[in-house]
Amino acid sequence: MAIEQVKALTFDVFGTVVDWRGSIIREGEAFGRAKGLDVDWAKFADSWRAMYQPSLDRVRRGETAWTKLDDLHRASLDRLLVDFGIRGLTEDEIDHLNRVWHRLDPWPDTVPGLTRLKTKYVLVTLSNGNVALLVNMAKRAGIPWDAVLGAEVARHYKPQPEAYLTTAEMLGLQPEECMMVAAHNSDLIAASGLGFGTAFVARPAEYGPGQTANLAAEREYDAVAKDFVDLAGKLGC
Amino acid sequence: MAIEQVKALTFDVFGTVVDWRGSIIREGEAFGRAKGLDVDWAKFADSWRAMYQPSLDRVRRGETAWTKLDDLHRASLDRLLVDFGIRGLTEDEIDHLNRVWHRLDPWPDTVPGLTRLKTKYVLVTLSNGNVALLVNMAKRAGIPWDAVLGAEVARHYKPQPEAYLTTAEMLGLQPEECMMVAAHNSDLIAASGLGFGTAFVARPAEYGPGQTANLAAEREYDAVAKDFVDLAGKLGC
Repeated sequence: MAIEQVKALTFDVFGTVVDWRGSIIREGEAFGRAKGLDVDWAKFADSWRAMYQPSLDRVRRGETAWTKLDDLHRASLDRLLVDFGIRGLTEDEIDHLNRVWHRLDPWPDTVPGLTRLKTKYVLVTLSNGNVALLVNMAKRAGIPWDAVLGAEVARHYKPQPEAYLTTAEMLGLQPEECMMVAAHNSDLIAASGLGFGTAFVARPAEYGPGQTANLAAEREYDAVAKDFVDLAGKLGC
Repeated sequence: MAIEQVKALTFDVFGTVVDWRGSIIREGEAFGRAKGLDVDWAKFADSWRAMYQPSLDRVRRGETAWTKLDDLHRASLDRLLVDFGIRGLTEDEIDHLNRVWHRLDPWPDTVPGLTRLKTKYVLVTLSNGNVALLVNMAKRAGIPWDAVLGAEVARHYKPQPEAYLTTAEMLGLQPEECMMVAAHNSDLIAASGLGFGTAFVARPAEYGPGQTANLAAEREYDAVAKDFVDLAGKLGC
């Protein structure tokens, strides 16, 4: 595809734009101290995220009706609280903990990089996160999206084609006029198969010190950058 | 409703945020000069807008399947070109003219007012315009939306309740946590009936010098302001 025809950059969010693991650990540790809980929050974060794809799979396969990510996160959290022996939280406390996904911190290069990219491109989420989660996250962190789209609007979770194609269609663009930006090879491969351009941005700390996957681009992409500021430079912003 | 619980302001766009009539006249006159057309562009703009509600009605009543506003505008434009005797335009020229709705200018107070309101509230479109139209408009004019939602995402045109309720639901908010901002009494009455807060901002020049409707608030609303800067002051921003 010709990079010159790209009008919109569509972003994966969890891991690519924000540091979900570090954010959950930081907030969990503060919460644990305040509540006197003895929890390994790194293990807690990893366990929560490990339940993510299986919960999406049940929706993808149609075993459960469309369910937004906030509600899938909550069902996983309810199980995790049992598994980690965390008892005695009020409903408000559990709800607040579940909404830690609305309060994830961006990587240090995210806002400066997006601010530059926004001068040339339409910046839009193409995430499995629901709209409220992404809007609240952006509001708190100052992430300058032009639009918040993706799975909830399409009612299909990535990598189902509808998630990508509905996003392009709502932007009034052909897939070739959109470039998927992600830290995950599988996301870029799915987008590329539908005609999207692709930009890989490595996030080697996403899964913590033991990360083994997605450390490098595994295909030829239209752009490969070490962070969003680097991507802005490579795309001429 | 209690104004203190409002978290998001949901905006009508055509007439409330942007000056559709003045913008179409300005661009039409420039286009007409370049093409040597003898057209009364004020009459053209008014005629185009007069076809708006009837075309939405056909979708609301289910006589036609869901159709985004860009396509309804185009069908109306094709008829208008015949009615006004405008011939010989290329497909690209007609498409460009149709997309004048993507290039509408904001009222002078729009961007300064929204910039202040954004410090306290989530700002979101609740418009019958489609996502691409609203995203392109915002990008060109610097309108700082937090999210672009409304009819296309809900697949229902205002004043159908689904348009309002889907927008609130996607924001993760109760209707009472949303305040509809509009220059049209009918929009506010519909929103209010569903539990939304209401703010009336008069736009007495929307329909040109002969405007007779919506010159003033016709009900008691939670806020009445003379423009968006005034609204920001009244909402404590």
